[in-house]
Amino acid sequence: MIRLTSYLRGAWWSGQDEGQTLVNPATEVALATCSTAGLDLGAALDWGRTVGGPALRALTFAQRGALLKAMARTLHEAREELLDLSCDNNGTTRGDGKFDIDGATGTLSAYARLGATLGERNFLLDGEAEKLGGGARYVGQHVFLPRPGVAVHINAFNFPAWGAFEKIAVALLAGVPVLCKPATATALTTWRMFQLIDDARILPPGALQLLCGPAGDLLDHLGAQDLIAFTGSADTGATLRGSAAVVQRSTRLTIEADSLNSAVIAPDVELGGEVWHAALRNLRTDIVQKTGQKCTAVRRIFVPESLAGALSEALVEELGRVTVGLPSLTEVGMGPVATRSQLRDVRAGITQLRGEADLLCGGADPVDGAGVDAGVGYFVRPTLLRADAARANLVHQHEVFGPCATLVPYSGAADEAAALVARGQGSLVSSVYGSDREWLWSLLQGAAPWNGRVVIASDKVADQVLPPGMVLPTQVHGGPGRAGGGEELGGHRGLSFYSNRVAIQGDKGELRKMLGE
Amino acid sequence: MIRLTSYLRGAWWSGQDEGQTLVNPATEVALATCSTAGLDLGAALDWGRTVGGPALRALTFAQRGALLKAMARTLHEAREELLDLSCDNNGTTRGDGKFDIDGATGTLSAYARLGATLGERNFLLDGEAEKLGGGARYVGQHVFLPRPGVAVHINAFNFPAWGAFEKIAVALLAGVPVLCKPATATALTTWRMFQLIDDARILPPGALQLLCGPAGDLLDHLGAQDLIAFTGSADTGATLRGSAAVVQRSTRLTIEADSLNSAVIAPDVELGGEVWHAALRNLRTDIVQKTGQKCTAVRRIFVPESLAGALSEALVEELGRVTVGLPSLTEVGMGPVATRSQLRDVRAGITQLRGEADLLCGGADPVDGAGVDAGVGYFVRPTLLRADAARANLVHQHEVFGPCATLVPYSGAADEAAALVARGQGSLVSSVYGSDREWLWSLLQGAAPWNGRVVIASDKVADQVLPPGMVLPTQVHGGPGRAGGGEELGGHRGLSFYSNRVAIQGDKGELRKMLGE
Repeated sequence: MIRLTSYLRGAWWSGQDEGQTLVNPATEVALATCSTAGLDLGAALDWGRTVGGPALRALTFAQRGALLKAMARTLHEAREELLDLSCDNNGTTRGDGKFDIDGATGTLSAYARLGATLGERNFLLDGEAEKLGGGARYVGQHVFLPRPGVAVHINAFNFPAWGAFEKIAVALLAGVPVLCKPATATALTTWRMFQLIDDARILPPGALQLLCGPAGDLLDHLGAQDLIAFTGSADTGATLRGSAAVVQRSTRLTIEADSLNSAVIAPDVELGGEVWHAALRNLRTDIVQKTGQKCTAVRRIFVPESLAGALSEALVEELGRVTVGLPSLTEVGMGPVATRSQLRDVRAGITQLRGEADLLCGGADPVDGAGVDAGVGYFVRPTLLRADAARANLVHQHEVFGPCATLVPYSGAADEAAALVARGQGSLVSSVYGSDREWLWSLLQGAAPWNGRVVIASDKVADQVLPPGMVLPTQVHGGPGRAGGGEELGGHRGLSFYSNRVAIQGDKGELRKMLGE
Repeated sequence: MIRLTSYLRGAWWSGQDEGQTLVNPATEVALATCSTAGLDLGAALDWGRTVGGPALRALTFAQRGALLKAMARTLHEAREELLDLSCDNNGTTRGDGKFDIDGATGTLSAYARLGATLGERNFLLDGEAEKLGGGARYVGQHVFLPRPGVAVHINAFNFPAWGAFEKIAVALLAGVPVLCKPATATALTTWRMFQLIDDARILPPGALQLLCGPAGDLLDHLGAQDLIAFTGSADTGATLRGSAAVVQRSTRLTIEADSLNSAVIAPDVELGGEVWHAALRNLRTDIVQKTGQKCTAVRRIFVPESLAGALSEALVEELGRVTVGLPSLTEVGMGPVATRSQLRDVRAGITQLRGEADLLCGGADPVDGAGVDAGVGYFVRPTLLRADAARANLVHQHEVFGPCATLVPYSGAADEAAALVARGQGSLVSSVYGSDREWLWSLLQGAAPWNGRVVIASDKVADQVLPPGMVLPTQVHGGPGRAGGGEELGGHRGLSFYSNRVAIQGDKGELRKMLGE
């Protein structure tokens, strides 16, 4: 059995008790154990601040970018091994594993390129020097300086690779050291990735640390210049917001919480046309991919009453073709959910939603997975429900974090659709299918401020549109309200979370010499 | 006696009990009463969201800017009356009153000009449309959309005019309605300014509301798209951070908290030279102006041991020339602090600091003000202390929010000075006096990330440099850690707090038509 260790202060540590066991969610076979008992987390954070921070801040963006590039290369060389680990510990099909692993290396590569573009500086100017009155020489120049703290990344179980490295890429490029805490149940892939990076001796000491297992007293050691970037449930997000680090000591926090994302079908969509097929394709992907365990997955599908029958029929047919089972089998289209507690929550959630919605396919009943013994594994079927817009409440409030979405027919009016989107109280992403510009603009005005991202699939791009669940390094990832109120990625935009913006006022010529231009 | 009312839902409301009494801090004569008992604050917030928000969002930046310009003009026309009210209720000298009143109209004017520059749009694009892969037509465009909520502004007692309108200017220009809650004890000036604006019929209904008196259950009605912008103490800031609105409902919060700002004298400063005199001038201003009740006022003065004697002597002489008393008298250089509880806190704070610092002038003893009866008014003398860098702790932790600063001699090494600045755990502004570029850069690298703003007064700009306590509309105002971790103003930068950044993905041509370019 593998023993997961934590990489702290430049060494690998094993916790001082047996700890937790990680299992294969398809076979329920134990894979590894890990513990953080007795580890000195305060010392680890200090190591990051005092050793890693100065080393990173001394590098230029180009040099930091080169580190990211080396990390991407090292991880990509181990792609097959990592895909196997993802399959074993996350229950991912090969396609789902690629989505996670290639997402990690792709994001590292994208920020490596951004580093090369930002070049031979080690902090960013923000705008130009501005005269302040009083005299021509006296100006103010805003700069973004790396925060002299450590970034704690608390990640979700669903993306052990992408989730860890999309955050790491941005923090390291900004010049801030990281302590990464993956979700314990699926930490195997992250742990192996850190081993590979450590073996390759890419990073300066203190730049990157790993905590495998419970967070213990980690937050108690965070202060005014430290940061927490969290991905996970809205409930845990609220706990972090209320923590003493954030409330009393002003530790900076960003949250990316799973939310009730929407797809909106406009009334002009032609049954069987290109936009229709783009919708079907994306909806199927969002429900099935990663067994629905994506914070960006669609949960609510708003469809004009006139199209509701056809859409539910087509989707049920699509989902019916998906074989659930051992994800390493080529005929299997969807693996298990990641943990036993997820299985319990997903089943309970579907049951709850059925209180106000009809079941079109799937459901909460136990299901045997192809390729494993009956009753083994955390399998659930792709599930589609249908609720009535006038009486549905829970569908806007309770997220089932699995392969489950609910169709909600509506009148076809843009303002009604926008109001339905807004009832989710803040989402990461919504997708809109339609081509009538006036209708789209009307929807956008009401719905866009409730989302971090909106994907418009019109007839002009129906063949090109990427699935809305795909988070791209150049686009912001986050959303208001329930989605956490945070923001990650977005190219250079992501760097500001890790930076302090400071206005430096003084003599124009002197500032230029000190700060560059 | 004046009765302060609240302007909610387009009407003026008087609370249903006697409420609190506002006094003249120089004479202790009662000026006004106010109460918020029985006012329906939930309905007021809804009015802002549903009436004010849509009206503001429909306007272009140019139109919103024109509203700000009209507000500035209306308030400026009443300047003399407002200066009298400021003197009566805040105890300000004419100069201190101008700093507040003209700060309000100046900031409104600055944002009016920004609105004219931003022109005929009603939301902002952020960067350019970027290709997302998949095809040439499929792009992502980031936009800043006004949040469809209401902004609650909770202001400090020291700047009833500037404090209220620097926030209002930014929110209204961003397209977000405001409910302004001034500090009760000094709400008279704010209340009169709102009356003037209401009488002039400048704003659309719901754009601006006023709550004079205790906040009651105001925060209980805030949700996912609402905002709180708070200025005040670090303790109240922490309470807001831990509120259910912020923790549970993701209400967006920014805090600007008073902090332990620094002045650093570099070892190259020549006694009696231009930089020396700029330092003396600014230090005197920061201690005396507004009776030291400025969140940006200097609290810690780090001076090389070799210059410490001369600096303390010169400052003591300067402060000794200040007459304390009735602020309407021309010979009076400093009025009272604003309230009885402030007087108590300032005296207690000076006594606390004396536990580790020597008193050079001023002190906690009662003092009679010129022009009023003995024992009347909340007067305190300009106070200078001197502490030892090696044993001083409280000077880095406890802010005396009055005319009080502490000299701390240090070795003259830039890294020592930076470490001392950082011990304040986050400040709004620090000023540096010196001309050796290498030394300055060394200090900046360590000290700048602990500040929202740094003012460098070198020999090249010693004649032009504005006092560091002066907050300018084009420069960010805020700071990390203890200073609240927030950011206000900064020209266009201030708009982002009131906006949601959304990535809109779709066909390049369609997006251009909908969003403009």
